[in-house]
Amino acid sequence: MAERRAVLVIGAGDATGGAIAKRFAREGYVACVTRRSLDKLQPLLESIRAEGGEAHGFGSDARKEDEMVALIHKIETDIAPIEAAIFNIGANVRFGIAETTARVYFKVWEMACFGGFLMGREAAKVMVPRGRGTIIFTGATASLRGREGYAAFAGAKHALRALAQSMARELWPKGIHVAHPVVDGAIDTEFIRTQFPDRYASREHDGIVQPEHIADLYWQLHMQPRDAWTHEPDIRPWLETW
Amino acid sequence: MAERRAVLVIGAGDATGGAIAKRFAREGYVACVTRRSLDKLQPLLESIRAEGGEAHGFGSDARKEDEMVALIHKIETDIAPIEAAIFNIGANVRFGIAETTARVYFKVWEMACFGGFLMGREAAKVMVPRGRGTIIFTGATASLRGREGYAAFAGAKHALRALAQSMARELWPKGIHVAHPVVDGAIDTEFIRTQFPDRYASREHDGIVQPEHIADLYWQLHMQPRDAWTHEPDIRPWLETW
Amino acid sequence: MAERRAVLVIGAGDATGGAIAKRFAREGYVACVTRRSLDKLQPLLESIRAEGGEAHGFGSDARKEDEMVALIHKIETDIAPIEAAIFNIGANVRFGIAETTARVYFKVWEMACFGGFLMGREAAKVMVPRGRGTIIFTGATASLRGREGYAAFAGAKHALRALAQSMARELWPKGIHVAHPVVDGAIDTEFIRTQFPDRYASREHDGIVQPEHIADLYWQLHMQPRDAWTHEPDIRPWLETW
Amino acid sequence: MAERRAVLVIGAGDATGGAIAKRFAREGYVACVTRRSLDKLQPLLESIRAEGGEAHGFGSDARKEDEMVALIHKIETDIAPIEAAIFNIGANVRFGIAETTARVYFKVWEMACFGGFLMGREAAKVMVPRGRGTIIFTGATASLRGREGYAAFAGAKHALRALAQSMARELWPKGIHVAHPVVDGAIDTEFIRTQFPDRYASREHDGIVQPEHIADLYWQLHMQPRDAWTHEPDIRPWLETW
Repeated sequence: MAERRAVLVIGAGDATGGAIAKRFAREGYVACVTRRSLDKLQPLLESIRAEGGEAHGFGSDARKEDEMVALIHKIETDIAPIEAAIFNIGANVRFGIAETTARVYFKVWEMACFGGFLMGREAAKVMVPRGRGTIIFTGATASLRGREGYAAFAGAKHALRALAQSMARELWPKGIHVAHPVVDGAIDTEFIRTQFPDRYASREHDGIVQPEHIADLYWQLHMQPRDAWTHEPDIRPWLETW
Repeated sequence: MAERRAVLVIGAGDATGGAIAKRFAREGYVACVTRRSLDKLQPLLESIRAEGGEAHGFGSDARKEDEMVALIHKIETDIAPIEAAIFNIGANVRFGIAETTARVYFKVWEMACFGGFLMGREAAKVMVPRGRGTIIFTGATASLRGREGYAAFAGAKHALRALAQSMARELWPKGIHVAHPVVDGAIDTEFIRTQFPDRYASREHDGIVQPEHIADLYWQLHMQPRDAWTHEPDIRPWLETW
Repeated sequence: MAERRAVLVIGAGDATGGAIAKRFAREGYVACVTRRSLDKLQPLLESIRAEGGEAHGFGSDARKEDEMVALIHKIETDIAPIEAAIFNIGANVRFGIAETTARVYFKVWEMACFGGFLMGREAAKVMVPRGRGTIIFTGATASLRGREGYAAFAGAKHALRALAQSMARELWPKGIHVAHPVVDGAIDTEFIRTQFPDRYASREHDGIVQPEHIADLYWQLHMQPRDAWTHEPDIRPWLETW
Repeated sequence: MAERRAVLVIGAGDATGGAIAKRFAREGYVACVTRRSLDKLQPLLESIRAEGGEAHGFGSDARKEDEMVALIHKIETDIAPIEAAIFNIGANVRFGIAETTARVYFKVWEMACFGGFLMGREAAKVMVPRGRGTIIFTGATASLRGREGYAAFAGAKHALRALAQSMARELWPKGIHVAHPVVDGAIDTEFIRTQFPDRYASREHDGIVQPEHIADLYWQLHMQPRDAWTHEPDIRPWLETW
């Protein structure tokens, strides 16, 4: 690849964001990864560099407009054009409606949706003049329907889906591939391992989604030719009931 | 009706909220209506009283938690138990993604969704101990899918729908009828009359939804026996393409 | 009501079809009801007549084009114009895919969908010149998603839903109200009583849909003014998980 | 690949079916392709063989149970185990409801849905004992919603979707990957070229889906590891409005 190209992963803290960054780095992309604490990004950065890839970490709060604007400006100016921007922040909380505080309701939306809006808008601004680029928002089961205890989380994920749909309809005809994959099953993370050990046990039988396989899907989406773009693929383990 | 019963309509500024308040008042309910400016509620209050109904107006900002808490407490304490609570605030704006400011994106969500969360939660708290009550959130076309220019509005409406679904699944088994009617067409309002005169002309042929007919639907929802509840009825004019 | 008006209920064998016929008869409509065996219609006919209504029974196979054509012609010519036509034949079977014979797969479609097509088309033909009328196809949970064991039944119900949607978009602008209510819960029938006694026990707590309440919904749909039509209301008991 | 593996493509007459067969053949699969007339399969068979692949053609009517049973038995016995079975028969007709004959309504269902049921069931029977395999049913825009003129076609496609969903929920936990990709846009076919020349002109700007890219998607689905399966990816050109 003659030209330098960057992938931006907002929320590279969990297993999925890291796997996506590695996958794109392996294909020659410069991995630009963020989470709130720069320190916590070190293992990921080292892992990418150990494989011969180039990686840059940013301690950045996705909910702050000025930080997002500055981040994208810096990458575009100092590193490489952003060819793929991926928003991967979740905020999976569960509370009955009476126990959902206004603060929680707001914060879940701010993290899981508002940050996505900021990334999506800023990425669109730099991609539209080039007439190409991929913007991906990670969806979940809660993107598709509400459930007891999920007023806050499903609200944020539904709003993120509406963002992805609205942006797709506006930006596809400008050459920007906006997608919203829906991960409809438990992912192999520390959280599932420690909080849902019974469920985690199904990992032996491939009952838990491997982050690397989500990363493969995201790479395939980025590679699709523009006459055959996918907007909302679902992904779940064979053993998942749905 | 021996007992006094109140209906609460949050956002009784437009044609629809007012029509709903009148409809319930006509059935003997005490109409408690809000909008940000109390002054603007006077014509509605007078209209209900002229028909022999009882009406109370409140200048109240639905986005402020303390105001919502105080409002519902006051009605329950001083007026009558709230048997039906209806959230009817919209915020229909249209901007391309690059032109959507963070301020607009936040405010649309705050008005069209966060206020609904506050009303829904506070209404649930007083209804659950009684084991009955109706909570209705008004939906729109943008509740179901995003579209170019609708990142902010569709985001808020999608999140409101997720709230309605999550609350329905939690609260139906506690006797609370949570519903989310989707008004999928232009309503006969000043806004449509002045901004979309061509469309408004179809009013002659019943091409615009009459607020009174939305109010009929809401009344029917409130009257449904609990073995046969509806969650998400759609409503649109015969001439609407969809 | 000066003019005579007929309601046609195809499949008035079960609780629901009978309740709908009675409801419309109570409003002054001439009830025209069918099932394959005329004998079995006698109790329903007598019940309507005992309430002072007018009722006509027809032993007719909904899957036979010539019988459907003749039936509608006869009612229109000899009895009264059909103002509402309701298709209410189910065929709820459950088989794993390997156990689903071609004969079963075909018959379920023929009963639960093809008969609906014949009724819908023939009703449309007589209603369109009058510029008014209501056509209702009864939907179920299986109309919305497939499930293990439901390849045949969900297939037929999905196809019936596609029919209702296609007819609505073509015929609403011609004044015909096509609707597809989705009954998403167990109905109070002999079948549920004998086959699912545990579930039936929830009837005491309003956990089973009463056919009379489905009939109320159908009547409300028929009465809606054309600026505010509903296409697909859902209906289920408060205790239903969904 | 040490073992011989077959892909079965039912309806390899159009561009898409042929492209899928070629794609799998290029990966070492024995291509078993059908259409009603064996003669018309010759160019496809020759093309696969010219690339060094192995291909077998069958003149077979997908609507005939005995022919489908015999076909799959023959391939399994004489050629190779079927690892992927793909149903790709469409029947895109458009008629207003009054003009839709019973014959057309039935035939469209028989071709576009009943044949899929027969293939799906017979493929499941041979795959389940092996605990692996892929079954794909090609979906279209009409799989998701009805439209004026599409009562027959949307009915068949909705029913096929219900089949895919029902089979997925039953067979995924048995190791069979059932998928239903939705091609939501015009495909580069002779039909589009001659019937919709204006639309076809957008081919220059990648406005028409290339069959080869659908084939890539099907191959990716077949290759997905079982912890990360996709059931219903959508695919459409960047210029498509949706």
